[in-house]
Amino acid sequence: MKIKQNINVAVDIALFGYKDNNLHILLVKQGFGQFKNQWVLPGGFLKDNEGLLDGAKRELLEETGVNISSLEQLYTFGDNINRDPRARVISVAYLATANPSKMKLKADTDSIDVAWFEYIKIPKLPFDHNQIIKTAHTRLKAKLNYQPIGFELLSAKFPFSDLENLYMTILQRKIDRRNFRKKILGFNFLEETGEIKKHGSGRPALLYKFNRRKYMESLKEGINFEIKFA
Amino acid sequence: MKIKQNINVAVDIALFGYKDNNLHILLVKQGFGQFKNQWVLPGGFLKDNEGLLDGAKRELLEETGVNISSLEQLYTFGDNINRDPRARVISVAYLATANPSKMKLKADTDSIDVAWFEYIKIPKLPFDHNQIIKTAHTRLKAKLNYQPIGFELLSAKFPFSDLENLYMTILQRKIDRRNFRKKILGFNFLEETGEIKKHGSGRPALLYKFNRRKYMESLKEGINFEIKFA
Repeated sequence: MKIKQNINVAVDIALFGYKDNNLHILLVKQGFGQFKNQWVLPGGFLKDNEGLLDGAKRELLEETGVNISSLEQLYTFGDNINRDPRARVISVAYLATANPSKMKLKADTDSIDVAWFEYIKIPKLPFDHNQIIKTAHTRLKAKLNYQPIGFELLSAKFPFSDLENLYMTILQRKIDRRNFRKKILGFNFLEETGEIKKHGSGRPALLYKFNRRKYMESLKEGINFEIKFA
Repeated sequence: MKIKQNINVAVDIALFGYKDNNLHILLVKQGFGQFKNQWVLPGGFLKDNEGLLDGAKRELLEETGVNISSLEQLYTFGDNINRDPRARVISVAYLATANPSKMKLKADTDSIDVAWFEYIKIPKLPFDHNQIIKTAHTRLKAKLNYQPIGFELLSAKFPFSDLENLYMTILQRKIDRRNFRKKILGFNFLEETGEIKKHGSGRPALLYKFNRRKYMESLKEGINFEIKFA
């Protein structure tokens, strides 16, 4: 079957990380072309013999050194036929979360640099990449209502205040802390480790860890995790 | 920019309708090619100068005569590089709901027939169209948890039992009717019309209608509509 079509397919990845108490997103610096030296989302053109998800994983790995197994399809951007000034390109965007402290970044192929950018300080990006990031953030916020997503973002052991701060950072607003604590602890998938962490002159904090087995059980039963705001 | 890529972009539409007390989906009969005379989802190739959503609306209108303004992007199918045996094709799938009684169907262009198929009796379809329909149904079920979707599917005036049956049909299971009634009426966006409908020898039923303004207000406040099962 011969199809006369002049449309190209790209994949882009919005990878969120939590570091220095703030939500970050991973960007790469373009190494060539019209947008040389500008920061963009990791991504690129799909190969003819490559599945969409495989293409997204490959581009992320090639351009940033980051190997992520669980990417979630976010949305396909292609209503604006001029979203890429170089050619007609539709982009299948993916969303993922990761813990930056566990990662070694390495720019390669089309990218000459890679870095975590604080979410609220993202500059104006080429293409519709700001819109992709906004859509990804909206999805991330929505996910908080039906599944806790702290697993990949926090350290293995963390004070409760870290989880609280993570949620406030993603939601970009204050939550009702007492209600949040009650709900989270009620799910029973957080465990006290028995260890404590001292920070500054403040009260030493109990360290918690996730119990993945209990978490999976809760998911199967269906959790409904509505967050109340302060 | 010259990109060497041999991937084609299609759009497909999963349009759900509610008729004869059952959930239906709209299919078209292919008019030519390898799958001639087989039923498939309405859809086709995107034009070079056409946005994705515009392409989906155009294909639906051309092949079925149905003009729908609100299509929701569902998912892009392209992990399986052999999903279309004729060429490499990724498909951006859309989801919509409509009231079949208001529609005049008319096959044209690539399709030689168009018909509503009862959801639970859909035959094995070419490509991955059964999978697309399953994904669309899953999304439809999920949507019931955060927004009532009876507006487009029911008649303007309907007995409460129609709404109840619609939900059970979409969810493919029995719901707790007393709890459902209490919750729905609690939202205050259903209004009694003062009219009644007699059906068979049963008790005549009060007819309701949606109050769209109140519904929109509820949506803004954020409704959480968890359905309890019987």
